[in-house]
Amino acid sequence: MWQLFQFPLCPFSRKVRLLLGEKGVGYELVRESPWQRRDEYVDLNPTGRTPIIRDAARDITLIDSAAICEYFEETVDAKPMISGTAANRAEIRRLVAWFDEQMYADVVAPLLDERMKKRLIHRAPPDGGTLRNAMRAANDHLDYIDYLLDHRSWIAGATLSLADLAAAAHLSVADYLGGVDWTGHEHAKGWYAGLKSRPSFRPLLSERMEVITPPKHYELLDF
Amino acid sequence: MWQLFQFPLCPFSRKVRLLLGEKGVGYELVRESPWQRRDEYVDLNPTGRTPIIRDAARDITLIDSAAICEYFEETVDAKPMISGTAANRAEIRRLVAWFDEQMYADVVAPLLDERMKKRLIHRAPPDGGTLRNAMRAANDHLDYIDYLLDHRSWIAGATLSLADLAAAAHLSVADYLGGVDWTGHEHAKGWYAGLKSRPSFRPLLSERMEVITPPKHYELLDF
Ligand SMILES: N[C@@H](CCC(=O)N[C@@H](CS)C(=O)NCC(=O)O)C(=O)O
Ligand SMILES: N[C@@H](CCC(=O)N[C@@H](CS)C(=O)NCC(=O)O)C(=O)O
Repeated sequence: MWQLFQFPLCPFSRKVRLLLGEKGVGYELVRESPWQRRDEYVDLNPTGRTPIIRDAARDITLIDSAAICEYFEETVDAKPMISGTAANRAEIRRLVAWFDEQMYADVVAPLLDERMKKRLIHRAPPDGGTLRNAMRAANDHLDYIDYLLDHRSWIAGATLSLADLAAAAHLSVADYLGGVDWTGHEHAKGWYAGLKSRPSFRPLLSERMEVITPPKHYELLDF
Repeated sequence: MWQLFQFPLCPFSRKVRLLLGEKGVGYELVRESPWQRRDEYVDLNPTGRTPIIRDAARDITLIDSAAICEYFEETVDAKPMISGTAANRAEIRRLVAWFDEQMYADVVAPLLDERMKKRLIHRAPPDGGTLRNAMRAANDHLDYIDYLLDHRSWIAGATLSLADLAAAAHLSVADYLGGVDWTGHEHAKGWYAGLKSRPSFRPLLSERMEVITPPKHYELLDF
């Protein structure tokens, strides 16, 4: 049985969970808080970051969410998520990297720092300026998603792909942390509503991170 | 004809160039300094980062070094660099991500900031503390490479792979910037000497970044 080491608000873990959900791969969740840098975890994964996925019986440990997604794409045929021509696949991977690097750095990491880590670890109040910048950046990222969806049915082209799952993973964490204002983003909102209603997304939306409560609209299909 | 937009000390561009060199793919270099955020470049690549590779005749633009490497791995059969079982491929991708994220953040980015950007852009002296930390981190990364090579012939397993190219790309930039002390790292040194002598590596080693001179040993096969 695969075990996914993660915490509920890790966007990279959410991306992997959405992929596994779409493909129908079973797994068990193991709670890991990377900021604790547990010795046993760092022994498994020298980066100390989440997620990893491990099959102890076969002694396989996969590290890095992009490597994990490629692995399941290669080994499980159901619902290909990095498909099409080589150029289509490059566009999917470009956009996954865009959300994993830019949207994470601009929006999700500062929200996690201010609204989760300061609360759980430092017991300090969030910094208002940092929060405002993250929310402004979230708005810019939604503009870019609107722009992409103006030209295509899905984020990276004509079909649902890993780029949609990556974007939704990061957005859902930002939304949980109250960082997203959907007003004026009709394209992005319609696309996200569609993703929210997928069976792969439901378990993520009903989960909670201790102490931190999401806004009311977070879980609603009509928000 | 492919055009690679890059600057000589960009490690992600070096990784792509090593892959293209190994595979025998021809390309032309276009000099791009991402810190200038040229409008025409940001129009091609919203991240504004290097590298991208573009075939103007076919109007194909590939963005993000990982996506670029996967593209050429998929379209050019010669010298597979992400090969083996799915688990082998995951190990290659894990290590590419390790060097691209950890080694870049711990070693290469601070060296580029202190020894290149401060010189070229800010006309300020480097910060000694930051340089010392980067060099200490370089030593830790060499220890990890020694450890890997204690167990395997190449960084990710029994054959040369993209993980070797990624590691060498980052190390070569750190070495150019005087951040690497090879003393006591016999495994890593032997492995790097082998890579330096490959035809794919020669053109990179003979190139220079304006104003910044590498240490004497940088280009030598016997260092
Ligand atoms: N490139 C990695 C990034 C993983 C990552 O940054 N994870 C975060 C959690 S969302 C982490 O573990 N950060 C370290 C910390 O919070 O201490 C991946 O895609 O798996
Ligand atoms: N994930 C990207 C990272 C590229 C990257 O960070 N490139 C650096 C140059 S080495 C950059 O353009 N930084 C922006 C700057 O220097 O202003 C890739 O693999 O292509």
